Amino acid sequence: MKPITRIEQSLAMALAAAEGADCPPRLAGAVRHAVFPGGARVRPQLCLAVAAACGDDEPALSVAAASAIELLHCASLVHDDLPCFDDAATRRGRASVHFAYGEPLAVLAGDALIVLAFQTLSAAAASAPQRLPALIATIAQGVGMPQGIVAGQAWEGEPRVSLTTYQRAKTGALFAAATMAGAQAAGADGAPWRALGEWLGESYQVADDLRDVFCDPQVLGKPIGQDAALQRPSAAAEYGVEGALQLFERLIGAAIDAVPACPGAASLRALVRMEAERLVPKAISDELLRVAA
Amino acid sequence: MKPITRIEQSLAMALAAAEGADCPPRLAGAVRHAVFPGGARVRPQLCLAVAAACGDDEPALSVAAASAIELLHCASLVHDDLPCFDDAATRRGRASVHFAYGEPLAVLAGDALIVLAFQTLSAAAASAPQRLPALIATIAQGVGMPQGIVAGQAWEGEPRVSLTTYQRAKTGALFAAATMAGAQAAGADGAPWRALGEWLGESYQVADDLRDVFCDPQVLGKPIGQDAALQRPSAAAEYGVEGALQLFERLIGAAIDAVPACPGAASLRALVRMEAERLVPKAISDELLRVAA
Repeated sequence: MKPITRIEQSLAMALAAAEGADCPPRLAGAVRHAVFPGGARVRPQLCLAVAAACGDDEPALSVAAASAIELLHCASLVHDDLPCFDDAATRRGRASVHFAYGEPLAVLAGDALIVLAFQTLSAAAASAPQRLPALIATIAQGVGMPQGIVAGQAWEGEPRVSLTTYQRAKTGALFAAATMAGAQAAGADGAPWRALGEWLGESYQVADDLRDVFCDPQVLGKPIGQDAALQRPSAAAEYGVEGALQLFERLIGAAIDAVPACPGAASLRALVRMEAERLVPKAISDELLRVAA
Repeated sequence: MKPITRIEQSLAMALAAAEGADCPPRLAGAVRHAVFPGGARVRPQLCLAVAAACGDDEPALSVAAASAIELLHCASLVHDDLPCFDDAATRRGRASVHFAYGEPLAVLAGDALIVLAFQTLSAAAASAPQRLPALIATIAQGVGMPQGIVAGQAWEGEPRVSLTTYQRAKTGALFAAATMAGAQAAGADGAPWRALGEWLGESYQVADDLRDVFCDPQVLGKPIGQDAALQRPSAAAEYGVEGALQLFERLIGAAIDAVPACPGAASLRALVRMEAERLVPKAISDELLRVAA
């Protein structure tokens, strides 16, 4: 089965369980709206790619870890879109959760997704419970305090923050959790896989900053120009378009160099290169440079 | 060491870990504001009382379970107080988190506390990882979908809900998680302990409804009259004060009857009776009946 199919099936089963008896119907609707249809499912695919490179001897656990990471990512999008943050009307090309279901249900849907993430992960750990404490530690580090995505979002409200600290927390942390959890779900040590996730997270964030400046909102599926409007730290603002593009290339190179020695190393490196081309297609980087010149 | 001291120490250690390197300082402040100083710490004390009744052979795990439940309770208070729900200016006798730190940090503090709960629990499970999957399942059921406190809060926005379904989710579910997790942390089966938690949760909710109608806001530490103002389901509104008081007594009786046979059964029953007197002191129930007459 293709990794993306495993992920979608696992997410569908997690949501079906959550929508059990006596679930408030509009809460179930809001949660489903937040998860389906998904975006590129980049983080869970990365998690499964690393699990595969490490042998993937507990596939139910690795796909649960991948799903947990995606559920947490969806939760963060729902809360980041709230009126008190971006007040984004659209996400993934349609109404954001609070535009479709109202603010109270958006708050609760995000909360429910965070809980569901840990529930989904641990429900798959019955046959390998000794792997669960480290997996939860890794995933919680990716989302919580002091350096996870919640911290990244909180930095947006602080008077001073370095771009690196902000982007590491806002994006790098969950990517690092994805690579490390992929290894840990397969019984391997997570630590050697942190750097790959961090570099990929930073490159993804820089690509996002670039697209926020120049992309067609129809293509992006969410409003553009938000970083400048909300005075958020942004690589495009700090280094200019050309500098940000160079930074992106350097980060992708660092990610490729950071793939630990393992049987699946070559295919993982190829996957990173393909992902880079998907994030910032050559044609678009040429166009960005032309416009910026 | 007294149970309350164990709980406060465990919470303090969890927060100290969360406030590690590179934590946004105002996020750390908001999370600390949400947890300290605490309220009565009813749920974690209940969790430890059940663990003690079951032998408490992994005290680091039982106090971590108790702390996780309290962190989740604090998270729910922070989010329930948000402008899109109660917009409560005060909580536990001082400013609510969003009044003290603003709405963005209140959203993020709640999110961080949910993550920290699962992180704290699993960090204590290294010596008994086989107990962790069931513990997480229990605690997630208490807070998430379909019947945990998030669902309870979501019912407030649905056009129709039975008082029982609402109160079971809003309050009963986390009390049931507290009793079951106490047993599971000590290596016992959680299921026989569910009823005790559910009855206690319902009685606690009825007591809360009564206090919302009549209590001095200075004593309560939060605004009164919110149930009626927000048209929330309430036992006091549905059955009147006398009916609600009778219901409270019946629920406490059912809780006492539901204590499973175990060495510590007698002291647990005495604790439930004491808790009932703390929740609705005889002097106050007499006064409520006099005013309602």
